[in-house]
Amino acid sequence: MKDLVNLGHGADIDQMIIKYNKSENILDFSSNINPYKPKNIEEYVLEGLKNSIKYPDIEYLNLRKNISSYLNLNYEYIVPGNGASEIIYMVMKVLDGRLAILNPTFSEYERAAVINNIDILDLYLGEDFKVDIESIEKNIDKFDFLFVCNPNNPSGNVQDLLKLLELLQKHEKIMIVDETFMEFVNNSDEYSLVKYVNEYSNLFIIKAVTKFFGLPGVRLGYGITSNKDIIHNMWSIKEPWTVNSFAENICKYIFKDIEYIRKTKDYFEEEINYMLKELNNIDNIKSFNTNTNFILIKLEKYDSHYIKEKLFINKGILIRDASNFKGLDEKYIRVAVKKREENERLITALREIMGV
Amino acid sequence: MKDLVNLGHGADIDQMIIKYNKSENILDFSSNINPYKPKNIEEYVLEGLKNSIKYPDIEYLNLRKNISSYLNLNYEYIVPGNGASEIIYMVMKVLDGRLAILNPTFSEYERAAVINNIDILDLYLGEDFKVDIESIEKNIDKFDFLFVCNPNNPSGNVQDLLKLLELLQKHEKIMIVDETFMEFVNNSDEYSLVKYVNEYSNLFIIKAVTKFFGLPGVRLGYGITSNKDIIHNMWSIKEPWTVNSFAENICKYIFKDIEYIRKTKDYFEEEINYMLKELNNIDNIKSFNTNTNFILIKLEKYDSHYIKEKLFINKGILIRDASNFKGLDEKYIRVAVKKREENERLITALREIMGV
Repeated sequence: MKDLVNLGHGADIDQMIIKYNKSENILDFSSNINPYKPKNIEEYVLEGLKNSIKYPDIEYLNLRKNISSYLNLNYEYIVPGNGASEIIYMVMKVLDGRLAILNPTFSEYERAAVINNIDILDLYLGEDFKVDIESIEKNIDKFDFLFVCNPNNPSGNVQDLLKLLELLQKHEKIMIVDETFMEFVNNSDEYSLVKYVNEYSNLFIIKAVTKFFGLPGVRLGYGITSNKDIIHNMWSIKEPWTVNSFAENICKYIFKDIEYIRKTKDYFEEEINYMLKELNNIDNIKSFNTNTNFILIKLEKYDSHYIKEKLFINKGILIRDASNFKGLDEKYIRVAVKKREENERLITALREIMGV
Repeated sequence: MKDLVNLGHGADIDQMIIKYNKSENILDFSSNINPYKPKNIEEYVLEGLKNSIKYPDIEYLNLRKNISSYLNLNYEYIVPGNGASEIIYMVMKVLDGRLAILNPTFSEYERAAVINNIDILDLYLGEDFKVDIESIEKNIDKFDFLFVCNPNNPSGNVQDLLKLLELLQKHEKIMIVDETFMEFVNNSDEYSLVKYVNEYSNLFIIKAVTKFFGLPGVRLGYGITSNKDIIHNMWSIKEPWTVNSFAENICKYIFKDIEYIRKTKDYFEEEINYMLKELNNIDNIKSFNTNTNFILIKLEKYDSHYIKEKLFINKGILIRDASNFKGLDEKYIRVAVKKREENERLITALREIMGV
């Protein structure tokens, strides 16, 4: 099994800096994070430090209530985690049966399943990375729960998954939707399945918090379901105090920062349009439409390893080599949507390497 | 299986406040934390916040190097964790075989083993909670690895475990020592097994960081071993980014704060003497000698539930009901060693309830 260090995630900036002995500031397009932060965050963090002289509440009651107000859902439906990743691993610990994964997608689903000795059925998204309901229905007896990422990583497209949810309910299968990047979508209310949590007990949603709020190092995510068995089983195996005092504390404030949330969504909508337009003007690449804060690119010249190395060494830019996503190959790279001046640097660099 | 919420840990202050509807400030003697903080911690935390806009290094190279300098050990021997608890759970995931636990001790060892379907052999400490080598040797063929806590929680006594380590090595058994409270011991160099890590590959040590540095909500601990298989297997199953940016960052500084470390050890030595002397003057209780920042008390009148409730409701003091430690009963409570004026409040309250 691949160990943690060789997973080939984005966010391998520390390893790249050591490998190529680069000391300058690297522009990191490999991980998909909001480049802006909510207001007063220093203040909330210092308040969190004051709380950190005691253990966080082992039940995270206030934290869950803050999330529940934000979602307008029962707080008992919420399980907090050390980033979305703790929730992904917890899901694999409590679900019993065979897992289907819709590829290409985030590699941690597979790793978490393998660690927990869960059999995996690899299914694939259809044309333009759309969910292929027919193919899933054809395979419906071969799995007990299905993992789908929406908007999907690495393709960036958001989808209406209600039909899939209904299909899975009909066949008594559980659907796990990773909505880690949903908050970046402008009209996310239309696509997020949070509104179906009360109605569908076969639905489990995974959410990231600190990625959207530009603070992934603070580490906060959560799971949502109205399925009492899953919730109970998760608390039965949950490790204690995995969410730190800073993450616990900022939740008193950040969800109420409506202005920041609105501005972020508007920013990404505009910036995605800008980047797609610019990228489409570059020869020898094809960019896929996206609804979130990253873009999948297909190279028609060179390969992902070459482009990654070239951008890093010559331009101090780190991108995500997307060749290790199941179903993709060394023709694919993924780039984040960052601040305008940073995006401009990427586009100029790509144009220089790929030809006008 | 007991879920996380009903484990009966100390640190149940939030639950107690809700249960008894107490709004005032509660004096928490139930969790064992340094009441003092290292200097400049606000500054280091704000620096950590700046780093939190990116993911922590998935390998935690700098973090491990900072710990390795502190211990004077190869950084590859160190696995960082979200508190000592992540390490306890990781140990159970990678070790294959039957576990022996020396009771009474910290309940998470048992819970982590049960979650990972590991068979447990309950062994018991001898008189005055001393390790009983003969009883362990008699049972040596019944287990593959042994968990021991030193200084032991809840008894507080530190022990020289070299003979036990040698016995286990001779029989090819692995010894896991939880040294979570070792840093509080004044002459800890004498007792910590860190100096044997290079020589004994059957040794795995668990350490807490943020408890000693008075910031348990920051969440940092680590495991140490020269056993390459264990280290490799741990990285194979380790969940990503479990240590947050604040914890990662303060390690650049706190281990170098020699003055704080020295002062803390001196403080606890003096304060333990003071508390034991005062407690010994109270009728109807027996205090056990301790080398660390908490004290086990045996009640000769009333029981632990009554005393816990009485102290909480009448005095706003929370203690640890120690009746749920295997091998103890409702005659036992545990109290932390805190600041002098706080300790005085506890002693006065106990004297009032128990009689002079």
